[in-house]
Amino acid sequence: MPELRKDPISARWVVVATERGRRPSDFADVSAPATETKEEKFCPFCEGNEGKTPPEIMSWRTPGSLPDKPGWAVRAMANKFPALIIEGDVNRTGIGIFDMMSGIGAHEVIVETPKHGVSLADLDEAQIEKVLWAYKQRIVDLGKDKRFRYVLVFKNHGTAAGASLSHTHSQLIATPITPRYVKLELSSCRQYFLDKERCIFCDMIRQELSSGERVVNENEYFVTITPFASRFPFEVWLLPRRHHFGFQVQPDEERLQLARCLKDILLRLKKTLNDPPYNFVLHTAPNPLPRAGRPDYWGTLEYDFHWHIEIIPRLTKMAGFEWGSGLYINPTAPEEAAKYLREVTI
Amino acid sequence: MPELRKDPISARWVVVATERGRRPSDFADVSAPATETKEEKFCPFCEGNEGKTPPEIMSWRTPGSLPDKPGWAVRAMANKFPALIIEGDVNRTGIGIFDMMSGIGAHEVIVETPKHGVSLADLDEAQIEKVLWAYKQRIVDLGKDKRFRYVLVFKNHGTAAGASLSHTHSQLIATPITPRYVKLELSSCRQYFLDKERCIFCDMIRQELSSGERVVNENEYFVTITPFASRFPFEVWLLPRRHHFGFQVQPDEERLQLARCLKDILLRLKKTLNDPPYNFVLHTAPNPLPRAGRPDYWGTLEYDFHWHIEIIPRLTKMAGFEWGSGLYINPTAPEEAAKYLREVTI
Repeated sequence: MPELRKDPISARWVVVATERGRRPSDFADVSAPATETKEEKFCPFCEGNEGKTPPEIMSWRTPGSLPDKPGWAVRAMANKFPALIIEGDVNRTGIGIFDMMSGIGAHEVIVETPKHGVSLADLDEAQIEKVLWAYKQRIVDLGKDKRFRYVLVFKNHGTAAGASLSHTHSQLIATPITPRYVKLELSSCRQYFLDKERCIFCDMIRQELSSGERVVNENEYFVTITPFASRFPFEVWLLPRRHHFGFQVQPDEERLQLARCLKDILLRLKKTLNDPPYNFVLHTAPNPLPRAGRPDYWGTLEYDFHWHIEIIPRLTKMAGFEWGSGLYINPTAPEEAAKYLREVTI
Repeated sequence: MPELRKDPISARWVVVATERGRRPSDFADVSAPATETKEEKFCPFCEGNEGKTPPEIMSWRTPGSLPDKPGWAVRAMANKFPALIIEGDVNRTGIGIFDMMSGIGAHEVIVETPKHGVSLADLDEAQIEKVLWAYKQRIVDLGKDKRFRYVLVFKNHGTAAGASLSHTHSQLIATPITPRYVKLELSSCRQYFLDKERCIFCDMIRQELSSGERVVNENEYFVTITPFASRFPFEVWLLPRRHHFGFQVQPDEERLQLARCLKDILLRLKKTLNDPPYNFVLHTAPNPLPRAGRPDYWGTLEYDFHWHIEIIPRLTKMAGFEWGSGLYINPTAPEEAAKYLREVTI
């Protein structure tokens, strides 16, 4: 079983595969070309191949069609090679100064379309809306599991961004701990709210909309910006303009606008940067905790968090020492990036 | 001039190139094979080509030889394409909720040998000792510049780890802020010391030496371990066994042992993993600040920091969502990694 281990110095949790881990010879292909897309002879995510994946957990289906059979538009299932294991209790132990817990969690795949060879940016808005609907269903459902503190939805597009299958899909990981960056964000937002009785994201959005120089696009409910302190060239954040602490509480009737905004920015990135590999991560509020008053209890976050999606094109290999220092060097100013993204024809 | 910008939510500082930044077309080669080592027709780091680099800042030289001429063993100069600019004042400004300062800093290159085509692991111990001596000289020298809070020494080995020139070299960046991870470490160490009157690293080293399962090698003064919560496969930390808060205060007479220990671990990684690309980062105490009593004043860190080197082989491309979440998934248990590294013949 995998283990969650905490580094006592940096306070970060790591998922460590303790059985059948990767050995030195398994890394032999690391210097293989990043673009090498070995043409999959067989794709388990294609319509008709439902029997080759773990059973579906939920799907958007044509009425009357059966689970694990054709007829779906979006389909979620367990990851065949999960980083965390769904069955079992979260045993928490300490070994001297080290802390660990059993690697309990969910690791799921959300297949975004039955069609092979298209990317999320290419899907029509109605289909993207179904993908976003699936995110919500899974976050809400896993949020009921008292073992899990957080549900992290993310997407890897392209081999260089970590996608191992080319058929377009997203993933989610539900964890018994709140990931470190999420905690830092939450803590910073709460502090700001305690100081000012305002949401820091709302303030930032107001300022960005007023200056305009880092705004890529906006519609009634959503806005895309290149953040002031972008870590990476062409980093983009997609945010709801009105205050909503969690993705799961964003009103359903605004989801089509969200799909439109997401498609818009993905197309702009695709056109501007020649279909770059990218990752996106949905930053939402943590799951409600059973007990209040704990130091890590984030309460009802109605006021002090603001969900958003962070999109990171993987354009630079120069990220060496950033891993070690947390200091990023970004060779493209976000104002420049926003200008290119605004001006591209999509 | 580059700018240092702070993200108000995550509190991280980013160096943003605001002039002549990289445009979309500059990223066209991102999907080129990572191994593509365009054979350099001309190497500015080779002996005899000293005139083709910025002037040397310091060097280890044969007595009687002249600066910027042959006769050196190790040579430091400004980076020709610096991320930060050495000339000027650190102007601090705020724009609404955003904070920034001018991108003042030092960005230097330390050429580790006049010879082309060898790696740091291949150099003899005496030569590696000279490289470590150069690190110390630069840290001490830049530490006197009141504009700089921190001097970060790091090394990128291999194209996939961000090395743009193959001639073996290290780099350093001196910044007017303390990088975020460094701050987190410092703060965590200080808290532990306040709690227990012991250094957390000393406690960890004691526990690791006693269990042994994550120890790779040790000599009288230094030890290499695969950390309990390793983020990456075959991540290794090299630590002084005795408590020293800063690299710059490690006794000079122990430097040869440090060179021996560093060569040992680099050779083990090279043999075990087929010369992997890697980064290492020297984590040392920040520069002394002119004024005490500030919230970001780290004082004399004699007790609450413990310098070390973190070595990260770049083996996996699967690090997509880690950027966004701070949650790492490590497919190789550190106990397994330590075993492979211990058992390899070097």
